[in-house]
Amino acid sequence: MAAPGTDHIVTAYSEELNTLAQSIAEMGGQVELAIENGTKALLKLDRELADLTIIADQRIDDMQRRIDDMAVSMIARRQPMASDLRAIITAIHVANDLERVGDMAKQLARRSLKLDGLNLQPTFYNGVRNMTALVQRQVKGALDAYANRDSAGAIDVCNRDDEVDAMHTSLFRELLTYMMEDPRNITPCTQLLFCAKSLERIGDHATNIAERAYYLQTGKQLTSEVQELHRVQIKA
Amino acid sequence: MAAPGTDHIVTAYSEELNTLAQSIAEMGGQVELAIENGTKALLKLDRELADLTIIADQRIDDMQRRIDDMAVSMIARRQPMASDLRAIITAIHVANDLERVGDMAKQLARRSLKLDGLNLQPTFYNGVRNMTALVQRQVKGALDAYANRDSAGAIDVCNRDDEVDAMHTSLFRELLTYMMEDPRNITPCTQLLFCAKSLERIGDHATNIAERAYYLQTGKQLTSEVQELHRVQIKA
Repeated sequence: MAAPGTDHIVTAYSEELNTLAQSIAEMGGQVELAIENGTKALLKLDRELADLTIIADQRIDDMQRRIDDMAVSMIARRQPMASDLRAIITAIHVANDLERVGDMAKQLARRSLKLDGLNLQPTFYNGVRNMTALVQRQVKGALDAYANRDSAGAIDVCNRDDEVDAMHTSLFRELLTYMMEDPRNITPCTQLLFCAKSLERIGDHATNIAERAYYLQTGKQLTSEVQELHRVQIKA
Repeated sequence: MAAPGTDHIVTAYSEELNTLAQSIAEMGGQVELAIENGTKALLKLDRELADLTIIADQRIDDMQRRIDDMAVSMIARRQPMASDLRAIITAIHVANDLERVGDMAKQLARRSLKLDGLNLQPTFYNGVRNMTALVQRQVKGALDAYANRDSAGAIDVCNRDDEVDAMHTSLFRELLTYMMEDPRNITPCTQLLFCAKSLERIGDHATNIAERAYYLQTGKQLTSEVQELHRVQIKA
């Protein structure tokens, strides 16, 4: 490569940072699609879509590996300053959380295959459907907060995690009652219990990403005091 | 700081690398203790030990944050060469997996609190007990492989993960039969299903750590071909 001027180096560097951010955004898009497909496979017992979701997870894993390699190579070649280094390390963590969300989507698809042919009542699904919508909103909110360096948006996501947990608890109880009503419900409802758990964990990963986004923007850990203050300010 | 000679710099640097490795080892020790206590709380329904395990998880989280900060600061101050950089980034990943294992131990402790007072038969526990022993061995094996840069030991851990999964599947089925036998078993056995899942996930994290250990030592990703070859060699 021809010896570049300083401007050129800086530009190439910030281009690399942009590429990294872009890669996270792309991975986020793939993961959102995986949740969409995994939950649709579950709710419609669509075997084809389930298989597709399971296969597509490999691509998400590859994306994580590429982001990891890209980040490490940037650190090795450039000597990033503190704030850039923070951004690069955060990218590694966010990619890690996204990879796990992808895994959860794959789990949902796998469970849909196990549910097929079981004694499954449409009412069993109501809670799962509601929880899915909320969790998708959480992942989108976390990715937006990360992409836009929006610390208020990040706090919103973290505060809404209580809703996810409450929904999970109530769904858990509901499914237990179906199981007690009729032993034939035990196997399908057990599978749905684990689906609910996977959704709750997707919510947890969304919270992790939002916390990282907050830290990236403010340089501070998100505390429960800050979360509470934000709640009060929104209500006021 | 007084300007040091090159030797001094190198020594201080390798001391930092040692400190990082030492911190991972300490965190690993705390996490092993958490599994020990969490599973003991579960098997003996020991509320005190459960509370202790839940509180101790905060310390594990703090350890991860410190390792993260230490790693980032080392990268920022030193300009690590490729192999050292790989070791430092691996430490970040391993600490991340250990933190999640700690979370699983906390989950086991939390579930033991929910089980107290329920209609719990001693036989329900047999599978959980066996799985606990295997999973503890996996975590120890992974940490040893990482500490000793033992790639053969790392492959052993990855190969044994099939045993964990098989044990989990058989335990899952066993618990379902108890639930079908008597509706009063549904609630306790559901809790145990999730305990089994937590144990299986601890096994997965042990595998992740072993894969990282393998990569650190060999510079290559561990493939299923290598795993199979190792299996054949051991049998021969």
